[in-house]
Amino acid sequence: MSIYFVNLTIMRVALGQFNAIVGDLAGNAEKMRRIWAEALQSNVDLLVFPELAVCGYPPEDLLHKKHFLQDNRLIVDKLAADCPDKTTIVGFAESYRRKSYNSAAVLQTGRINKIYRKGILVDYGVFDERRHFQPGTEPVVINIAGLDVAITICADIWDTDWLAGLLGNTTKIQMIINISASPFHLGKIEKRQEIISRCAKEFNCAVAYCNLVGGQDELVFDGRSIFADSAGKLIAKGRAFAEDILIADIIPTGGSLKRSLGMASVQVKPMPPPAPQPTDLLDEVYQALVLGTRDYAQKNGFKKVLLGLSGGIDSSVTAAIAVAALGPENVVGITMPSKFNSPETIADAEKVAKNLGIEFLTIPIEPILKQFDQALKEVPGWDSEGIAYENLQARIRGGILMSLSNQFGSLVLTTGNKSETAVGYATLYGDTAGGFAVIKDVPKTMVYKLAERINKISGRQIIPADVLNRPPTAELKPGQKDSDSLPDYDLLDKILKGYVEEDKSVQQLVESGLPQDVVLRVIRMVDRNEYKRRQSPPGVKITLKAFGKDRRLPITNRYSSFDDKM
Amino acid sequence: MSIYFVNLTIMRVALGQFNAIVGDLAGNAEKMRRIWAEALQSNVDLLVFPELAVCGYPPEDLLHKKHFLQDNRLIVDKLAADCPDKTTIVGFAESYRRKSYNSAAVLQTGRINKIYRKGILVDYGVFDERRHFQPGTEPVVINIAGLDVAITICADIWDTDWLAGLLGNTTKIQMIINISASPFHLGKIEKRQEIISRCAKEFNCAVAYCNLVGGQDELVFDGRSIFADSAGKLIAKGRAFAEDILIADIIPTGGSLKRSLGMASVQVKPMPPPAPQPTDLLDEVYQALVLGTRDYAQKNGFKKVLLGLSGGIDSSVTAAIAVAALGPENVVGITMPSKFNSPETIADAEKVAKNLGIEFLTIPIEPILKQFDQALKEVPGWDSEGIAYENLQARIRGGILMSLSNQFGSLVLTTGNKSETAVGYATLYGDTAGGFAVIKDVPKTMVYKLAERINKISGRQIIPADVLNRPPTAELKPGQKDSDSLPDYDLLDKILKGYVEEDKSVQQLVESGLPQDVVLRVIRMVDRNEYKRRQSPPGVKITLKAFGKDRRLPITNRYSSFDDKM
Repeated sequence: MSIYFVNLTIMRVALGQFNAIVGDLAGNAEKMRRIWAEALQSNVDLLVFPELAVCGYPPEDLLHKKHFLQDNRLIVDKLAADCPDKTTIVGFAESYRRKSYNSAAVLQTGRINKIYRKGILVDYGVFDERRHFQPGTEPVVINIAGLDVAITICADIWDTDWLAGLLGNTTKIQMIINISASPFHLGKIEKRQEIISRCAKEFNCAVAYCNLVGGQDELVFDGRSIFADSAGKLIAKGRAFAEDILIADIIPTGGSLKRSLGMASVQVKPMPPPAPQPTDLLDEVYQALVLGTRDYAQKNGFKKVLLGLSGGIDSSVTAAIAVAALGPENVVGITMPSKFNSPETIADAEKVAKNLGIEFLTIPIEPILKQFDQALKEVPGWDSEGIAYENLQARIRGGILMSLSNQFGSLVLTTGNKSETAVGYATLYGDTAGGFAVIKDVPKTMVYKLAERINKISGRQIIPADVLNRPPTAELKPGQKDSDSLPDYDLLDKILKGYVEEDKSVQQLVESGLPQDVVLRVIRMVDRNEYKRRQSPPGVKITLKAFGKDRRLPITNRYSSFDDKM
Repeated sequence: MSIYFVNLTIMRVALGQFNAIVGDLAGNAEKMRRIWAEALQSNVDLLVFPELAVCGYPPEDLLHKKHFLQDNRLIVDKLAADCPDKTTIVGFAESYRRKSYNSAAVLQTGRINKIYRKGILVDYGVFDERRHFQPGTEPVVINIAGLDVAITICADIWDTDWLAGLLGNTTKIQMIINISASPFHLGKIEKRQEIISRCAKEFNCAVAYCNLVGGQDELVFDGRSIFADSAGKLIAKGRAFAEDILIADIIPTGGSLKRSLGMASVQVKPMPPPAPQPTDLLDEVYQALVLGTRDYAQKNGFKKVLLGLSGGIDSSVTAAIAVAALGPENVVGITMPSKFNSPETIADAEKVAKNLGIEFLTIPIEPILKQFDQALKEVPGWDSEGIAYENLQARIRGGILMSLSNQFGSLVLTTGNKSETAVGYATLYGDTAGGFAVIKDVPKTMVYKLAERINKISGRQIIPADVLNRPPTAELKPGQKDSDSLPDYDLLDKILKGYVEEDKSVQQLVESGLPQDVVLRVIRMVDRNEYKRRQSPPGVKITLKAFGKDRRLPITNRYSSFDDKM
């Protein structure tokens, strides 16, 4: 039978998965030039860069500036001239006939030969594409090394019916390129793989999927570019949360007759070695947090970060992530005890700092607290033992951290987790004060698991057992515990997942077995604390729905389905 | 000639322009029931409520909750049953065949008789409609009192070609109803009037435009519902920034033959008396700020507000607006002098409080500042005369205000204007700390005009001449003036209008006659301070483009067109 096997041709494709910086058009182009030069060494026919690689993703309202779109075009023209050999595909923001498009330019022989314009624009979650772009309606199929290759952008391959309609005679196509800027969240890679595999099978062709990498404000793009063969098998995957050049040979088998009969196939042969992948979900989260923190700091020009170390689990984990992101020499931990902080927690804060090898400062706040209290006592009705007094401690700490940030140009990391962010168990302008909220999308129950993982990764007890085992406390009054104000974190996190991430109603939550009184209490807390979240710093999105651009709720909001229903 | 005049019929229409609260479905319905009962007294044939009147506008991601959409429907069904007489049209969020629509229900004989679904969804500025809704594609024309009436929602009448296509035989139509939720900004009413007038002329029919009223987070809906006749003349306008029931008789002249020949007309006869309208732009701004502040406080359950009174123009104007919004008995002014505050400004702060008749507290911050400084001096490198030290004063004041807010349940108003918000001339967690930023969208040059207007309205010098004439200063170090750090406000505001509101490039700004060095300096400041704005409280939008949902720029952003171009 093998005499019928005709190996028509081979196309070598490189996916240049790189870390673009939003707005840094010249810098991104420079990176792409270097990748191009490197790819040429491997004798590739086609080099692919991610969606909006020229300007980074998402450029948001920069797209409203005409000169920004003009500059995008200038950069692509220059890139084409600088990279004349072989074919390069690069995403950029395009102004065409007075409208804006999310486009892919095909660079050949020193110029832009064709442009594909994204057809399926997305407006869910963190995306606002209709705000900025018009949808394209024309397919672009190019022939490279004898193969017919269709170009698509991100969501274009999600709706295979739409894509089949766009492409027309799909039996001609041997590969679909998908350039993407797909941010990470837990479960995303599985979803993505499923879509790519389905697309390959439906069009009976290889798929080359090139994703962006890097942190951008709330988002982390996780790379993991993919080659799939025409059977839908994922043949090769790029590095996770890091730059990579993923190269493979695309080998069609069977001629055009066989293709038209659906009997041909397209094989993919990757260049070794395969990139290591995250071991599990926790590993993914850890890597996302590290990259997100590193990129936010560095892309915004910060070398050093500082954070309050309380001896609790949240600040310990945040500090460990900061160290992994920026190195111990660039992290400063500060403990700011009042009379309510136990010697044990103060000692634990110091222990964590020592274990991580970071600079550690102690600034007692008791004298400042006293002075504040004395001033406020002049106002009739001030309660020197009330909640406002408790929170004053957090506000003094916030003031100290921000003063040090102001003095030394360091970025302040906040340490609040998703559970407390959700229910507002935080002091506005107190512990929420800072530039980047590392674990704001990590539920408390996962913070514990992360702590254990951090200890495991480093092969020693970086975060002391005491910190892991002590009942959580804000230490703002004597003997205080989180459990005085909040339900058990296991229960709380279950309710929050249902309410925040899945938009479930009280009725649905209760029917799923959660206790009604606690559900009602938690939901009220979540709803009433939207104003605090609105003023919180950005942090890494790791779940399906993070607080921020992902979940846009009014502050002024009287909706409470439970009043009507229960 | 009058024998050819055939008055076929008369339809009496009421526009129920009311203040809906987002999420308060039952409360909004109760208001509509009361308006319905009142309108019946005037013997109307048709009562019209605004866009999304049932749930308020914009409900944002509440629309992602299935039960929210179900509740919308339940409320409309109940409203139909409760208001069986005549015809009522009401906007609501609809779930239809598993998709969501921005819809208008026609209530007749106790039930929903027809539903129109908005066709033109908008995604610019503060709007995110594609995130939540599918566009409708079917026209709805109803016959009331012998007249053919087409229903449209907001942007549906902007594109008259699209609308003509939707409506088909438009010669049949004698009135277009447009239910709207159109937020205020300067120049909006002129735009709106132009659109309504054009629509009336193009379709040769009357237009009944019913707009929402009230403050919702950043937005203020200004009401000013409108009746236009078929000549495009605006016959009647509802109250500005207040609830109103605007009633008019719609009187077609000429029969169907004349209509089909384009020779008929539709007259509008309003019920007296006409509502007073704002006298000028400044009056519009003043009313918008007052309503926005009142509604943010009251809809969020605050009776009282407090703010820092520095004796400067910004806090004086903010206090005056707060008093107009909530009454002097609900406003507390606090002066928090350090050693850098002059006796004159402290005296002016007190004078403003006295003039406004509000409670006034003095809390000197010098002892707290000393204690902070002493603690921070332990950190090598702390500069007791540097910028961080200066800003510490603002942070202490923020801490005091938030502590009082915490203790007494009052809302803190911040006092920053648009000019300083733009360039980041503010201390994060200092003077930006609070719940609502009253004048955040008012440029400094306009703040002065507002101050003069406030004095004029009240017929006396509420804001002392000294406050108006003293060179602006933050008083954070000896002899400090704003002009040490910032260009002259006249120049600054011109640059900001071009850069922020009109998205102009450096080149364009310079070509318009602005000095290049100052333009470059200002733009750098604007770009670098996005992180501060992201954590600022909401405030009233009054310009075409406010900071907030209107202008969505990445924090991590290296774009600087001037580097490439100049």
